Amino acid sequence: MMNSPVAIRRAGRRSGNSGTREAILAAARGQFIATGFRGTTIRSVAKAAGVDPALVLHFFRTKDGLFVEAVRLPINPATPLREALERAPDSAGPALVEFLLEAWDSEDTNRTMLAIVRSAMTEEVASKMVREQIVGAVAQVLAACGIDQPEYRAALVATQMAGIVLGRYVVAIHALVEADRSEILAAFGPTIQRYLTGALHQEAGT
Amino acid sequence: MMNSPVAIRRAGRRSGNSGTREAILAAARGQFIATGFRGTTIRSVAKAAGVDPALVLHFFRTKDGLFVEAVRLPINPATPLREALERAPDSAGPALVEFLLEAWDSEDTNRTMLAIVRSAMTEEVASKMVREQIVGAVAQVLAACGIDQPEYRAALVATQMAGIVLGRYVVAIHALVEADRSEILAAFGPTIQRYLTGALHQEAGT
Repeated sequence: MMNSPVAIRRAGRRSGNSGTREAILAAARGQFIATGFRGTTIRSVAKAAGVDPALVLHFFRTKDGLFVEAVRLPINPATPLREALERAPDSAGPALVEFLLEAWDSEDTNRTMLAIVRSAMTEEVASKMVREQIVGAVAQVLAACGIDQPEYRAALVATQMAGIVLGRYVVAIHALVEADRSEILAAFGPTIQRYLTGALHQEAGT
Repeated sequence: MMNSPVAIRRAGRRSGNSGTREAILAAARGQFIATGFRGTTIRSVAKAAGVDPALVLHFFRTKDGLFVEAVRLPINPATPLREALERAPDSAGPALVEFLLEAWDSEDTNRTMLAIVRSAMTEEVASKMVREQIVGAVAQVLAACGIDQPEYRAALVATQMAGIVLGRYVVAIHALVEADRSEILAAFGPTIQRYLTGALHQEAGT
């Protein structure tokens, strides 16, 4: 009933024009980033966009659907990873760390990624975005470059990248916030490099 | 006014007996774990414990204070780390990873830690708990063992440990969930070992 044609015709001032969908997306993006997944509702987005809630449901069906469309991943590590692996595979690890720091030190990217990371802690729709659009994309690049165990390696890379994000940008561990880029690169570059192209199965602790 | 003696005398059936504080803590712990920091209120905890909200404020002053007392860290990596560093320093990395897996594979510990980790993404009180009680405790052990840069090393360890938790237990990346313990140990053991006792400043990517 909610997304019947009648309900849509009853929608607010923006209904019917091609900018409506974009207006809803912009409102949703702002709210998801500002107040998180749980603090955002179909109704609050509709109100901010000046449309009827039925129109939001008509375009995006569910809040999950709205999230996926509104909160696009602002950075994709697959592109710099592919370039690094083709150009200088032995420095792909540091290259990825450098990419991560640049992205998160940029305020806009930081705000959007933070919304995704926080939502991923509790919402399956955001977890799925991380698994598919980040980890899955990295795995595809590794597979395309003929590297063994691409899914597992991508997962290992993701753990350390996520850890850097948490430590430096979310929980703000003093020693990591204070570290300069060259220290961060020297610490994490070799780790990411090993996860990408190194030996993973040497006996640990012997 | 809320925590004046008068308000306390008006408190519910449990007021005045020594089990009251414990009853409030138990109720708070249950709610913080089940519904998170934001889903828990002084009022909802008071109701569950059968006391007046003023009594909760009297004992714990703020919701932050209640959180710190109620949600105690169920695992402390400092103890196994100290033992490993004294017994066989070269296997301290894998020992810490093993400790982490055992803790998180235990259902009770998992639920409490998940509440702390999720809260740490948005609440300063939980971030502080992670920084002080986990990262700080590890740094103290490293310093006591005479290892250089203890704060920085503890932070590095924390990033990779947190990443394992996120990948395997929160976001549930398939390849990490499926990996058996020996694979996980072989992948992450050497990383944690290097962060604990290895060289951190070699030139990256050369």
